[in-house]
Amino acid sequence: MVQDTFFGPLILIASFVSSFPSCGVSAASGFTGAGYPKAVPEALAQRIRAAPAAGKEFSIRLLTGASTGPQLDGALAQANGIAFRAPYNGDSTLRARINDGSTLYLDTHLGQVAQKARQGQYGKPNIAIIEAIGVTADGHLILSSSVGNSPTWAQLADKIIVEINIWQNPELAGIHDIWSHVCLPPNTQFIPLIHPGDRIGNGTLPIDIERLAAVVITDEPDRNAPFTEPDQNARTIAAHVLDFLQHEVKQGRLPSSLLPLQSGVGNIANAVLEGLNNSQFENLTGFREVIQDGMLSMLESGRMTVASASSFSLSPEAAQRINERASFFREKIILRQQEISNSPELIRRLGIIAMNGMIEADIYGNVNSTCVMGSRIQNGIGGSGDFARNAFLSIFVSPSTEKGGKISAFVPMLPHTDHIIQDVQIIVSEQGLADLRGLAPVERAREIIKNCAHPDFRPLLKDYFEQARKQSFGQHIPHHLPSALAWHQRYIETGSMAG
Amino acid sequence: MVQDTFFGPLILIASFVSSFPSCGVSAASGFTGAGYPKAVPEALAQRIRAAPAAGKEFSIRLLTGASTGPQLDGALAQANGIAFRAPYNGDSTLRARINDGSTLYLDTHLGQVAQKARQGQYGKPNIAIIEAIGVTADGHLILSSSVGNSPTWAQLADKIIVEINIWQNPELAGIHDIWSHVCLPPNTQFIPLIHPGDRIGNGTLPIDIERLAAVVITDEPDRNAPFTEPDQNARTIAAHVLDFLQHEVKQGRLPSSLLPLQSGVGNIANAVLEGLNNSQFENLTGFREVIQDGMLSMLESGRMTVASASSFSLSPEAAQRINERASFFREKIILRQQEISNSPELIRRLGIIAMNGMIEADIYGNVNSTCVMGSRIQNGIGGSGDFARNAFLSIFVSPSTEKGGKISAFVPMLPHTDHIIQDVQIIVSEQGLADLRGLAPVERAREIIKNCAHPDFRPLLKDYFEQARKQSFGQHIPHHLPSALAWHQRYIETGSMAG
Repeated sequence: MVQDTFFGPLILIASFVSSFPSCGVSAASGFTGAGYPKAVPEALAQRIRAAPAAGKEFSIRLLTGASTGPQLDGALAQANGIAFRAPYNGDSTLRARINDGSTLYLDTHLGQVAQKARQGQYGKPNIAIIEAIGVTADGHLILSSSVGNSPTWAQLADKIIVEINIWQNPELAGIHDIWSHVCLPPNTQFIPLIHPGDRIGNGTLPIDIERLAAVVITDEPDRNAPFTEPDQNARTIAAHVLDFLQHEVKQGRLPSSLLPLQSGVGNIANAVLEGLNNSQFENLTGFREVIQDGMLSMLESGRMTVASASSFSLSPEAAQRINERASFFREKIILRQQEISNSPELIRRLGIIAMNGMIEADIYGNVNSTCVMGSRIQNGIGGSGDFARNAFLSIFVSPSTEKGGKISAFVPMLPHTDHIIQDVQIIVSEQGLADLRGLAPVERAREIIKNCAHPDFRPLLKDYFEQARKQSFGQHIPHHLPSALAWHQRYIETGSMAG
Repeated sequence: MVQDTFFGPLILIASFVSSFPSCGVSAASGFTGAGYPKAVPEALAQRIRAAPAAGKEFSIRLLTGASTGPQLDGALAQANGIAFRAPYNGDSTLRARINDGSTLYLDTHLGQVAQKARQGQYGKPNIAIIEAIGVTADGHLILSSSVGNSPTWAQLADKIIVEINIWQNPELAGIHDIWSHVCLPPNTQFIPLIHPGDRIGNGTLPIDIERLAAVVITDEPDRNAPFTEPDQNARTIAAHVLDFLQHEVKQGRLPSSLLPLQSGVGNIANAVLEGLNNSQFENLTGFREVIQDGMLSMLESGRMTVASASSFSLSPEAAQRINERASFFREKIILRQQEISNSPELIRRLGIIAMNGMIEADIYGNVNSTCVMGSRIQNGIGGSGDFARNAFLSIFVSPSTEKGGKISAFVPMLPHTDHIIQDVQIIVSEQGLADLRGLAPVERAREIIKNCAHPDFRPLLKDYFEQARKQSFGQHIPHHLPSALAWHQRYIETGSMAG
């Protein structure tokens, strides 16, 4: 494929970047640290840093697919050049800017960004900066290690800058599937996908050459982090999840190939994938946001037949494995735009088994995925809302404590809610699994306290629950408001929820 | 149609009801006070009342479509015969049972009940009791004033009792559209509906005659409540909504026929419908849960071309209007099962404009729809979650105060969350409208306090917001936890949030 690629007019980055509007909307490719532009944002950060000396203010509104990397969110946040950010951030420098109030952050369901952008909710992008591995002779982009919202930004932006990243593996060509029939209602069609492996669109992204402002060549790596072995807690949580899935198959509530799997990124997710790869399940499929290390092994072993996602999120070693067996993986992996990978229509239709991490749950099984102590953003809701509400099984996982036992992941009441009781069916910690399906709130509380809470906090949770039942305004979801948030306040004041 | 109907074997209710299992799962038709069984539940309530004298305990797990009426929820709750209830309740006697802890209540997204039931999450129904207006010669039911979950209950229950209600208008035959291709993944299909007026299924519900245990004739009215004229607050809120919609059309963000409308039941919804009927909009459509009085006028005037719902919720006068012009309305109204009327796939595809009531919102625009002071259930989440998350525009409406000004609908923090920031785009009170699209949390707070809060509470909310910004753990969603729930606790203690 790549031999067909032609590289368009090269323009010096510095001169182009000087035409960026100083308070405009920039929309970039990138999802989960993959496929984001690197060279242009770094040049832009330089210009932003230089602005105050010239007596100018310069900050942008930045849109992406999801999280990016140090060359984009990191560099621009360092320069304090991001006034507004959506839909997701995972960068620590930018996180600090959001939490000190200098950057506004609109944390958005990842499956909804494209439609909201088409509705104009983020403002019209002046510039789309899209990483690709090549441009075909007929002006189509061959995207790189993520699709994310790139089709949307290419469609909406006044100008398009393409970054051809020669660090990316050119063999990724053919792995993408871009569905072009997205539009605003009332003209919306059904999405013709009924199996995770269905290809419904095109392998390349057509762009309007009239709006192509620059093609820039770069050679920089994605934010690929080394793989860390799952710790004991992660393995124990994964074992509970596997036991549960086996039980569900035995009960006839799941087929032996399960249903398409979604899981968040990280330690616990990798442990679950490792467990699945060593299990008796066969012909598994994945329909999710990211391809992680663990999935490559499952595809190689044949345990998993196909994995659909919007992006890679790999260790350098795993990226190397893809390079070595590109033609093999290209048959088994599909990268889609995020309004497809995270579509409620498809999540419900396919019957996804969703597994997502959390910061904390209350005793009734509401979940906080985003805001530490209710106010300090961690990352964002990401796709957890898209998946949890529409999944066949919605599972949330977390160690029962954090910070060496000073924070309990199970608390009387949440200071911030991302997932409501209705959307949280199963909760798992290293202590055990609470199957909350079909249970009313007070029944949920008993299961969560008994099965998931850490023994150090269990008696305190029981005390709260009993006090709530005695003093609550109503008995549907008993609460004692004066002490409901006391654990969080104690942590803020003393550094420990336990006091 | 009805002349084809034959009435199956009549069995005396009393003798049949004696075969009800005393702790079984009963699943009934009924949605928004329409189309629920009346005779069998009343006989059952009698038997439950008699049980203690015979030294027996008798209570059931009751499933329905949504709310029912005094003959079902009312009578059984009076007899304290409901151990567990899902997915929705609007009956005051049962509400009291839930809030004193004697009935467990699993408040469920109405669009998800059928799938959860097929998954076995509520237990297998022993008996389905389904109201109909007739049975065709080939054993199909002609349903009455709602569809709700009747197809699901008929499919899943061990035995089926049909109540033929001769009070219902036989001319309803032909108004229903029941899609039979629902099933569990991995075999799920796309739902082939692209316009609110599409008929995709059959007008009657086939049932398994082998499981038909009884056909009972009854003659009792639905819980049709008299129409109450919208009050001044409702009209003011409606005017804000109409101004907003007109503005959106002018800006080119909505077509002049708008997009299919959903709104909750009640005073404000009726005022909005009245306003729309007197507006310049044309060829409006409805895709929602219920057909209300106001929609009949819009269909009659031609302002609305078609209305799709799962149920009627009419005044006796409006029911009479339908009777008089049945053939006219049958062409313009479609009643569907609730997994279609409330399908996320369809809500997203059609681009619904969703308007729902609420109990309260916090300053950041999280919404509590269900739990007064966080613990006492009002009704339930109903379809608000199905619609708000997937809508093209998600609007929440409420007067700015309740209880003569003692309760503010806008508070520092919620003690219970049903709809998160991401799913709440526009909030309207009689004070004004806050357009929150594209705004980060602190920007949302300023708009809500300025535009929606009552002037009596506005300074107190500003004080809280300022204090939160000074003392918050993080500045993403500033909160001051020690005072965050003080308004609610003050109301519990003194009967007023204002102190």
